[in-house]
Amino acid sequence: MTITAEQVKDLRDRTGAGMMECKKALAEAAGDVEKAIDLLRKAGLQKAEKRAGRAADQGLVEAYIHPGNRVGVLIEVNCETDFVARTPEFQELVRNLAMQVAALGAEYVSRSDVPAERVARERQVYAGQMEGQKKPPAIVEKIVEGKLEKFYGEVCLLDQPYMRDDTVKVGDLVNGVSGRTGEKMVVRRFVRFRLGQE
Amino acid sequence: MTITAEQVKDLRDRTGAGMMECKKALAEAAGDVEKAIDLLRKAGLQKAEKRAGRAADQGLVEAYIHPGNRVGVLIEVNCETDFVARTPEFQELVRNLAMQVAALGAEYVSRSDVPAERVARERQVYAGQMEGQKKPPAIVEKIVEGKLEKFYGEVCLLDQPYMRDDTVKVGDLVNGVSGRTGEKMVVRRFVRFRLGQE
Repeated sequence: MTITAEQVKDLRDRTGAGMMECKKALAEAAGDVEKAIDLLRKAGLQKAEKRAGRAADQGLVEAYIHPGNRVGVLIEVNCETDFVARTPEFQELVRNLAMQVAALGAEYVSRSDVPAERVARERQVYAGQMEGQKKPPAIVEKIVEGKLEKFYGEVCLLDQPYMRDDTVKVGDLVNGVSGRTGEKMVVRRFVRFRLGQE
Repeated sequence: MTITAEQVKDLRDRTGAGMMECKKALAEAAGDVEKAIDLLRKAGLQKAEKRAGRAADQGLVEAYIHPGNRVGVLIEVNCETDFVARTPEFQELVRNLAMQVAALGAEYVSRSDVPAERVARERQVYAGQMEGQKKPPAIVEKIVEGKLEKFYGEVCLLDQPYMRDDTVKVGDLVNGVSGRTGEKMVVRRFVRFRLGQE
């Protein structure tokens, strides 16, 4: 069992324990990080179960509460430097993204976040709607793909039309700000609460 | 297969489809609600996959963003009537709960929300810390229980000491407002984002 320097560094970042302790714990745990953390905790070498932040991630955490306090959104958008995070343009972008989620209720950031089972279920429903219409399979497939595109445009934030200008997608809006500031930007996560709903 | 009136009502609430359609779909799906929803959708009898809110739940969705926008919290607290939700006392309670989560970083609302596996893991770690100390099992168990209490007081919002008065628990604070207004109050859910962390 070889323990790489990277594994040791990762465990140090997560536990704050010394290099040799981390190496020893990893060897004892046969490379299993979670197990190594437990070993360090048992040995009292980690004070709290806290993880170090990934220092490279800058940006903003922002909220938008719809008047009446029945719908609220919490969002995190990352950029590369705190300098850009403090610019009015970035701050406005984040505020607008939070409002967009509140108003249009996206469920995922991007289409790669939609679980495969949900996509499969959508496909099945769309295909089922055309059953008995004797359409050629290639046409059915094309229509299903079209409906799936529409579905992504409803549930994925980056695929939605922007509420203030529906000629652009939200993803294009983010890319625009990213291009002007020269920094990579990532909508990291969001949640939306609606009073009394799941 | 008997379909109850309650099942039909539930499906109607969730799909907006007619009573007879819902009954038929449920019978065809042998009582499986998710399957019945898919059948209704295939038949075009449900426009969108939206669920009706549970009308009984009143309250507020509120956010707190720590200055600097690196930590943010979104919270939902329920009460029984919109009248109470609009009172300054309830609004202040919700604001304070959001600030508490931002400042002290609870992970769960109450101890019943902590996954059993996590509790088991904590127990194991605590017991492991005393290995080789030849303590009687009953003493070990007592110490483990004590540490577990401390753990709940750190990760469960309602078990945490209230940040503005650590002689009371957050749960007591909620119960106090509940008692004075005569309405049941439930901290339904919250999320806490810290920039660049999981």
